[in-house]
Amino acid sequence: MIAPATATAYGRLEARFRRLGALDEAAAVLGWDHATMMPTGGAEARSEQLATLKLVCHEILTDAALDDLFGAAEGQNDLDAWQRANLAEMRRDWRHATATPTDLVEASSKAASTCEMVWREARPANDFARVLPHLEEVLRLTREVGAAKAAALGRSLYDALLDGYEPDGSAAVIDPLFDARAAFLPGCIATALERQAAAPPPLALAGPFPVEAQRKVGQKLMAALGFDFEHGRLDVSAHPFCGGTPDDVRITTRYDEADFGRALMGVLHETGHALYERGLPVAWRRQPVGRARGMSVHESQSLLIEMQVCRSREFLEFAAPILRDAFGGGSGGGGSGPTWDADNLYRANTRVARSLIRVDADEVTYPAHVILRYRLEQAMISGDLAPRDLPGAWREGMLALVGTAPPDDADGCLQDIHWYCGLWGYFPTYTLGAMTAAQLFQAACQAVPDLRPGIARGNFAPLLDWLRRHVHGRASSISATQLLTEATGRPLDAAVFRGHLERRYLGA
Amino acid sequence: MIAPATATAYGRLEARFRRLGALDEAAAVLGWDHATMMPTGGAEARSEQLATLKLVCHEILTDAALDDLFGAAEGQNDLDAWQRANLAEMRRDWRHATATPTDLVEASSKAASTCEMVWREARPANDFARVLPHLEEVLRLTREVGAAKAAALGRSLYDALLDGYEPDGSAAVIDPLFDARAAFLPGCIATALERQAAAPPPLALAGPFPVEAQRKVGQKLMAALGFDFEHGRLDVSAHPFCGGTPDDVRITTRYDEADFGRALMGVLHETGHALYERGLPVAWRRQPVGRARGMSVHESQSLLIEMQVCRSREFLEFAAPILRDAFGGGSGGGGSGPTWDADNLYRANTRVARSLIRVDADEVTYPAHVILRYRLEQAMISGDLAPRDLPGAWREGMLALVGTAPPDDADGCLQDIHWYCGLWGYFPTYTLGAMTAAQLFQAACQAVPDLRPGIARGNFAPLLDWLRRHVHGRASSISATQLLTEATGRPLDAAVFRGHLERRYLGA
Repeated sequence: MIAPATATAYGRLEARFRRLGALDEAAAVLGWDHATMMPTGGAEARSEQLATLKLVCHEILTDAALDDLFGAAEGQNDLDAWQRANLAEMRRDWRHATATPTDLVEASSKAASTCEMVWREARPANDFARVLPHLEEVLRLTREVGAAKAAALGRSLYDALLDGYEPDGSAAVIDPLFDARAAFLPGCIATALERQAAAPPPLALAGPFPVEAQRKVGQKLMAALGFDFEHGRLDVSAHPFCGGTPDDVRITTRYDEADFGRALMGVLHETGHALYERGLPVAWRRQPVGRARGMSVHESQSLLIEMQVCRSREFLEFAAPILRDAFGGGSGGGGSGPTWDADNLYRANTRVARSLIRVDADEVTYPAHVILRYRLEQAMISGDLAPRDLPGAWREGMLALVGTAPPDDADGCLQDIHWYCGLWGYFPTYTLGAMTAAQLFQAACQAVPDLRPGIARGNFAPLLDWLRRHVHGRASSISATQLLTEATGRPLDAAVFRGHLERRYLGA
Repeated sequence: MIAPATATAYGRLEARFRRLGALDEAAAVLGWDHATMMPTGGAEARSEQLATLKLVCHEILTDAALDDLFGAAEGQNDLDAWQRANLAEMRRDWRHATATPTDLVEASSKAASTCEMVWREARPANDFARVLPHLEEVLRLTREVGAAKAAALGRSLYDALLDGYEPDGSAAVIDPLFDARAAFLPGCIATALERQAAAPPPLALAGPFPVEAQRKVGQKLMAALGFDFEHGRLDVSAHPFCGGTPDDVRITTRYDEADFGRALMGVLHETGHALYERGLPVAWRRQPVGRARGMSVHESQSLLIEMQVCRSREFLEFAAPILRDAFGGGSGGGGSGPTWDADNLYRANTRVARSLIRVDADEVTYPAHVILRYRLEQAMISGDLAPRDLPGAWREGMLALVGTAPPDDADGCLQDIHWYCGLWGYFPTYTLGAMTAAQLFQAACQAVPDLRPGIARGNFAPLLDWLRRHVHGRASSISATQLLTEATGRPLDAAVFRGHLERRYLGA
């Protein structure tokens, strides 16, 4: 595990980061257990276990000897492209870790955890005033952290925060993409809703849908898509996520016996994340370059599977008989009637609505929710918007972008945990992911002519193969932009996602 | 988490050992997950996670600065008895960790893991010759480790190994206890079998017993005994164990639909371990003094619950209606017939047999299996017995002690994993535990006159309360011998266990 003393500087760095990688994996499994298996009484001990792992990792990463090792390794001329990329990712981790004084990291993490606790009570109580002072404190410390990272990374304040989730991401690239989308959205949403209103609504898929039947359908479709249960699991948690490690990928969902669609689409979404993790190159396990490229690419993989593939008519043709067999015998619909036809399932899975809540939003309105948050967090980070003015700014933005506004803060600016728990610079990755997904799927379909028809037959191997080669297997060896350019011939192009929405929702 | 620089030497040691304790807990949860939840494909990554945690702990424990801190702390006159005991336990851990050169630890651990892998194939193949060279290598390195520890601890070779499982245990104490037991056993077994043969056999408890019904009964009886499901779980694994952490105790079992008794008694056995872990003092969490006292006290807690309590007539009176309700409707026996009476359940749960296999043995013959292994491992450690002569020595010993001998090595000296995976000095703790259990239970019954009658009514609170005060809450603040002396008025006395066997099996 430890490189011999005779190893090169690069070899010694690999040994240290391999140790970090193994400890990160341990923390990931403990995090999964926390959300799925742990009895409530274990929470305090688990916090200490995770905090200790984090502290040990922080000490390894901020060891004074690392800077010299980086210097020496960067001077080595015997490194191949992956090794050089690995070294660059190590440096990035190190810069993030060393940029911020330890007491600021601790203060910031403590403020975020207090704020999150208050938020958990303030949201159901619709009491923004209660959490406001905590949010102000989190923002103040986040700006301090951001300033320290900005200096260390040579980036702007916002970009320095963004870099923690979207390596090399930048507002200068995101702004025009989101502005174009924001200009297109209100009209797109209105037209989609008009077309939808003119057509008959989907026939109701009436339950109950027993949990066990839902779980079996989920596992069947996961397996069809390429999820390997020798290297992963499906479990239940309050908030669905993809956790574990690349060799042991664990996704979760939650079941509602009145509605199978939400759990199922959640499972398929997390399956996209899981296939990415599982497809990361074995040769680079537990090294920084072997990790997923960042949140937008990660989200592109979940949205490619959920939105591009699993809400397509082709997929629903494949899934219809499986769903009918599992659920069609219920009281709600005849097994052989049109309720369980692909056509009805497609209409049910592509409904558009001006919802107040981001996590309930369809793929047409979802970007509007994200752009709102992106603009608001930029304004708060820059100091242009004070947290006390957030509720008003939220309502205005919702009206302008989604075309509806929340009656209260509970369904408004209190709905998402992100800012309250210290995640700033994260939101744009959702919509960057949706755009990336559309562009990757289009390229895959062009490269593999039988891809879409194959999906209708349940043949997902060509898609997974394409993703393995063009996305998963690249890990962090190149930037997200390079990855997309090499896979699709051009950098992120908002027109592709727009075209997808137009075809699916506007009849274009 | 880190004590301030101004803290005393003792305070700084507590901070370091608290970190070790948290990392040990993390490893314990990962170990539980490995046995219960992990898909097979996760094994290699899990090994690396656990090896890395072990390495990090080893580095913390062998840090050169510790010796000075110990010296300074041992000179502090402001420590109370628990703090002094904590310091002594820290020293013990440190002595074990620093006694052995790192390359010897690594060689020994590698040899054990290779030997264990070969053993896993050699046992079903009944091929002792195949594993013999590996066993020889494990023994050679174990003796080297033992010699290093003997020098560091100032103990004999065998006692130094024993100390890793049974702190302050010594062959000089065990030998006469086991010799007395060995002298009593052959006659005791023969008489018990004669008495048994003279009485009608128990009515068959015929299944099938559905897993879900077994699980529910197990959980019900666990809860009755005091297991707190807010701080623990019951799951399934190939080899039952008690894992997790004191605030999150996780026990496992395995179910056989043809026989509910084995899983149930296994669950109750592990519940005894779990109650001990859960009862360790909260104020000393993650400190060495806060841990369980050692393997013999741990085994005393599982055997006290399983053997002393749950195979007693009183417990089976309490359990009979629960078992009848859960299983009595099966094809095998009428729900209201004598099959599910406490009397029949008692006869079924106190059967004696000369079995070849230790883990299948009843409480009368079990010590004979253990004494055989104890004598053989002492002889191998001292060099008096060569591993190649083990099969013959095993058969001779089995004939002399148990009164039967295995037809082959698979059911002979290949049956237990211990020696092959490097556990030497562990075996005697099983029977020390059985003796300790009998002595503790006798003392509890004397102290609480209603204890036995209460068990028949399902009232286990007085027992748990007594154990909390006299055993669990003491943790490692005193030695096992002191603990037993304070709880029962005298050190380990083989006559108490003998008396228990005579009453239950010889009609005394």
